[in-house]
Amino acid sequence: MLKVGVIGATGYAGVETVKLLLGHPNATLSAISSVSFEGQKLSDVYPAFCGVCDMVLVGEKEAIAASDLLICALPAGLSEQIAKTCSEKNKRVIDIGSDFRLHDPSDYEEWYQLSYRFPELHERALYCIPELHGAPDESLAVVANPGCYPTSVALAAAPAMRAGLCKLSFIADCKSGLSGAGRKPTQSSHFVDVNEGFCAYKAPKHRHTPEIEQTLSELCGEQVTMTFVPHLLPVNRGILSTVYLDLCEGVTEEDVRKVYHEAYDKCRFVRVLGAGLYANINHVAHSNFCEISLHYDARTHRLIVCSAIDNVVKGAAGQAIQNMNLWYGFAEDAGLSAPPSVL
Amino acid sequence: MLKVGVIGATGYAGVETVKLLLGHPNATLSAISSVSFEGQKLSDVYPAFCGVCDMVLVGEKEAIAASDLLICALPAGLSEQIAKTCSEKNKRVIDIGSDFRLHDPSDYEEWYQLSYRFPELHERALYCIPELHGAPDESLAVVANPGCYPTSVALAAAPAMRAGLCKLSFIADCKSGLSGAGRKPTQSSHFVDVNEGFCAYKAPKHRHTPEIEQTLSELCGEQVTMTFVPHLLPVNRGILSTVYLDLCEGVTEEDVRKVYHEAYDKCRFVRVLGAGLYANINHVAHSNFCEISLHYDARTHRLIVCSAIDNVVKGAAGQAIQNMNLWYGFAEDAGLSAPPSVL
Amino acid sequence: MLKVGVIGATGYAGVETVKLLLGHPNATLSAISSVSFEGQKLSDVYPAFCGVCDMVLVGEKEAIAASDLLICALPAGLSEQIAKTCSEKNKRVIDIGSDFRLHDPSDYEEWYQLSYRFPELHERALYCIPELHGAPDESLAVVANPGCYPTSVALAAAPAMRAGLCKLSFIADCKSGLSGAGRKPTQSSHFVDVNEGFCAYKAPKHRHTPEIEQTLSELCGEQVTMTFVPHLLPVNRGILSTVYLDLCEGVTEEDVRKVYHEAYDKCRFVRVLGAGLYANINHVAHSNFCEISLHYDARTHRLIVCSAIDNVVKGAAGQAIQNMNLWYGFAEDAGLSAPPSVL
Amino acid sequence: MLKVGVIGATGYAGVETVKLLLGHPNATLSAISSVSFEGQKLSDVYPAFCGVCDMVLVGEKEAIAASDLLICALPAGLSEQIAKTCSEKNKRVIDIGSDFRLHDPSDYEEWYQLSYRFPELHERALYCIPELHGAPDESLAVVANPGCYPTSVALAAAPAMRAGLCKLSFIADCKSGLSGAGRKPTQSSHFVDVNEGFCAYKAPKHRHTPEIEQTLSELCGEQVTMTFVPHLLPVNRGILSTVYLDLCEGVTEEDVRKVYHEAYDKCRFVRVLGAGLYANINHVAHSNFCEISLHYDARTHRLIVCSAIDNVVKGAAGQAIQNMNLWYGFAEDAGLSAPPSVL
Repeated sequence: MLKVGVIGATGYAGVETVKLLLGHPNATLSAISSVSFEGQKLSDVYPAFCGVCDMVLVGEKEAIAASDLLICALPAGLSEQIAKTCSEKNKRVIDIGSDFRLHDPSDYEEWYQLSYRFPELHERALYCIPELHGAPDESLAVVANPGCYPTSVALAAAPAMRAGLCKLSFIADCKSGLSGAGRKPTQSSHFVDVNEGFCAYKAPKHRHTPEIEQTLSELCGEQVTMTFVPHLLPVNRGILSTVYLDLCEGVTEEDVRKVYHEAYDKCRFVRVLGAGLYANINHVAHSNFCEISLHYDARTHRLIVCSAIDNVVKGAAGQAIQNMNLWYGFAEDAGLSAPPSVL
Repeated sequence: MLKVGVIGATGYAGVETVKLLLGHPNATLSAISSVSFEGQKLSDVYPAFCGVCDMVLVGEKEAIAASDLLICALPAGLSEQIAKTCSEKNKRVIDIGSDFRLHDPSDYEEWYQLSYRFPELHERALYCIPELHGAPDESLAVVANPGCYPTSVALAAAPAMRAGLCKLSFIADCKSGLSGAGRKPTQSSHFVDVNEGFCAYKAPKHRHTPEIEQTLSELCGEQVTMTFVPHLLPVNRGILSTVYLDLCEGVTEEDVRKVYHEAYDKCRFVRVLGAGLYANINHVAHSNFCEISLHYDARTHRLIVCSAIDNVVKGAAGQAIQNMNLWYGFAEDAGLSAPPSVL
Repeated sequence: MLKVGVIGATGYAGVETVKLLLGHPNATLSAISSVSFEGQKLSDVYPAFCGVCDMVLVGEKEAIAASDLLICALPAGLSEQIAKTCSEKNKRVIDIGSDFRLHDPSDYEEWYQLSYRFPELHERALYCIPELHGAPDESLAVVANPGCYPTSVALAAAPAMRAGLCKLSFIADCKSGLSGAGRKPTQSSHFVDVNEGFCAYKAPKHRHTPEIEQTLSELCGEQVTMTFVPHLLPVNRGILSTVYLDLCEGVTEEDVRKVYHEAYDKCRFVRVLGAGLYANINHVAHSNFCEISLHYDARTHRLIVCSAIDNVVKGAAGQAIQNMNLWYGFAEDAGLSAPPSVL
Repeated sequence: MLKVGVIGATGYAGVETVKLLLGHPNATLSAISSVSFEGQKLSDVYPAFCGVCDMVLVGEKEAIAASDLLICALPAGLSEQIAKTCSEKNKRVIDIGSDFRLHDPSDYEEWYQLSYRFPELHERALYCIPELHGAPDESLAVVANPGCYPTSVALAAAPAMRAGLCKLSFIADCKSGLSGAGRKPTQSSHFVDVNEGFCAYKAPKHRHTPEIEQTLSELCGEQVTMTFVPHLLPVNRGILSTVYLDLCEGVTEEDVRKVYHEAYDKCRFVRVLGAGLYANINHVAHSNFCEISLHYDARTHRLIVCSAIDNVVKGAAGQAIQNMNLWYGFAEDAGLSAPPSVL
């Protein structure tokens, strides 16, 4: 059994990782750490875990010592040092945070106002949406787990864009459930402010913008540019991205459907819906699935792609487990095979 | 006091019209009609009205006989005959439905699979978003009240488009609360299906598409074309439209802000937010306001316009009352002056 | 026009009071104060008020100076000094907070861990649920506006209890929307914690317990004792109280219905539903109504009374305005006549 | 592998049973049936199941033929005949419906207006909340799976009542998520009616009343009588029951805590919370847990017990699987070991 520690176990991505590891056939939860709640039991922070996981939250050092693999779910800037420490001890890291996602250090500086301190470590890191980047190699030190919006948008746009069916500038209108905004109480996460409300936020400068462009540019071999507008949905979980692609002349709806089915029909966790159906976040809740629906607007020759994921699972913890599975040669869906919630 | 009858008083738009009329200083609710609930009290259908409005629902004929003005809130195809009857009796009609919205009969046939039977009546009808079309003239027989999405999108796009600041093909990604789907119970309006869910629907062929294009084309004097994707939000009320406009070369953010302020600063019910603020449906709930925020994406030279309305008020009943006020020379905000709900 | 200032204008009760005063025919909003947001515009705190009320929040002194009547919506312990200051200047006070509600100083000490500093002022104060206590007298200095739960429970239990139809020990199982917990962000008001959740809190020692017992004991002339369990509902507004009364031997359902109708049929804001109907918070949302339904359990000879109010209106701001109206001789429903929201 | 068929697989209880069986280590889903959707794929009815369970819905006969055990999730009156058929073929039945719950035929007639047709079959049936009734015996033909409210209330009241700590007449104020009202669209399950609403329903004559009284009376050996008031919560899943017990003289809070811990500390699926904590439906969502919190009201010498379950899991499908596990000698938590959802 692989010993896996979760660093930052009390945030939403961290605790979901803990939950998935508790049911994993090839891995065991070796340690959980938290700066804010060190010394408390996880079940003190999340009463749902009473009798299910009463493990005590420890410090990072202790978590690292107890584990072969560390999954970090931390705010920007806090994972790099941990990864450095781990690499020196020949322990691997999956970073759910953003410290290893951007390949160009100047992008990281521009969008995060932070600098990479261990450039050589980034050479041993792979940014990995498994359906687009394949399985991580054993020689790697770090797998950079993609952001929630980037997973959703890249899976929606990649097949058409990679196949040259559409132009390289596009629009993504994304809607995320509140868990995407984190667990810390703020005025904008207060129930009364969120419930029965809906608005855009951080547009057009959300930090996930360069990550999406990077993924698609690398797949296309050309610079892709996007307008990205995230919105806050009054639901707990889920991202629905509505992606607008200007199709190239002569491209037909059939061409489009073909490349999406070719891209995803063999993928365990992506399903492309038939004509007339619409991707919905409640079709993928509590699961690692990404659901994609395709809608051709003949009047404007645009392709509309809707993609739905659970932001906490495929957008964070679930994809981290999927990456772990591929990296260690486990079944891709080990620990991820529970059906979606139907209600 | 103007005697106003509401035909189709038990749908969401109808009952909100009743509610607004009950508090109107210049109009009195003379009759309410319903096919489904004729003979029952409105308060039997909506218990919230017990002791507030216990008026009995009658048939259309009776409602017409009792009223000077009829406000119709009916499914497509049912208002035209009523308007014909009223015009012969010199009674005016405001149609919240869709029978008088499209100017080109072939559009109505294509998108509604219905035909106009009284073309001469359409010549005495005005489609009216007051902020864009001005006050209806006394000589008119019918005011066509705009659809909820068209109100939201046209108010968002009109200033930039009319001023020639952007290209004539654009995208509107719209999100509506459930009341927009009507009061009739269906699987897709079941609480468990809607709550914690989110998806697009009817894209890219929603019936409001030609109505939006018509409004903007007329304002611009050129054919405007759009991609329109509506989504269902798990809230009771509100539409947020996120509109993407490709700005013409050389246009600056300042140019944009200027035309929006010029367009709306004198309008009682439209407010343009300052930089850094985002339109939110819970800022306009239960009010006739439209809130607009502007976001310039320098990287792609696109303008993002967010507009928020209450779909039942500014998107239906409230705008009907606003149109009535202007048509009859009442204060524009008579009966509409209650502040928005802040929670 | 009566000049009314609102002290503590940015909490939910305060801002709703502001909203109601903006539409009041006999009163004008003279000043608004806030400790946390002094110097800012109300519309900076609540964007819904942009263009509707852009008044600047001032300090308490300034608000008092500008007003004839002060409505205070403050945490426990902060209103008494303000009322003292006002009484010396012959200005009246309506306290939405809890400083003047409990008649026995030892109750205040026990339940609030605070002491009354100006006992003589309490002699010139009236605790007033208008339907139970009548109109405040001109000679009073202070009207103590009842708490949200006490309003809901006392209106539900009073008729049966006062008429001696039931025993004097009873149970109230109450469910409140989140606005009842205040606007300050905490973990327990975070959207993700509240949404799709439901639990009791503070039972069985919520501070509203002695207030309810006081009201009913005074009406009955005997000591009434209750078990009070409040719960948090994942909605913005509304309290539903389910009150369980053990009926005395021989009392019939008809006896019960009779006393409730006698008690409330002439009341503008209380409606007793017919048999088979159930009080619902969405029948009274955004209104000053209290809806009451009666359910007789023949098997156990218990009476179940459901009462629904909007906690922010009849449970706070609306009842304050109702008290103001009665105190100053305005129409009881001045500024409160808007129909409930039907959706 | 035990071959299990689900009859009535498209209702909420049925589809959750399917979901749990898909992940069960000792059972395989052999067939699913539906009257309304026969011939369609389950994933046509629930798109969340695309690629997860695309099994075709068949008729009852076919489902019975393919299975060793049938789990029925049907409206009242439809399971008895199926159980008869199965018993003749030596196949077992777990009935999630209500046809085998009430022991006294006259109760069934009074509360369901239906009669038992095969009384001898009822002698080979066991009503089973495992924590109270133990494991079903191999000789049985039918296990009657308890109702959602009865599970919640009986688990809350049983320890105190069985131990003689409280009086035999009590009150249960219960709140259920919308899934408890079934999947069929009605006006009262329309999103706009439910969202932001809250009310009691069917009180005081809900059909679960005699079932609860039966369980507790049998445990106590004396007639227990209750007042039962169910309410509809605007959430998808969960029941919170607040149970009010009049403690006998001299009973202390410690006595109470002791009997609850003795009753449940060894139970896999019931957890008794420590003092100061409150049972919450979001602590048990998507799990088979029942969470119980105890609150002693010293002022009135009443015990308040809050119990939270997921109505679809512990209140229906999960308990059916638990019963199956015990009946067939599988691990009690086989297929039920996924941790609760923490958000």
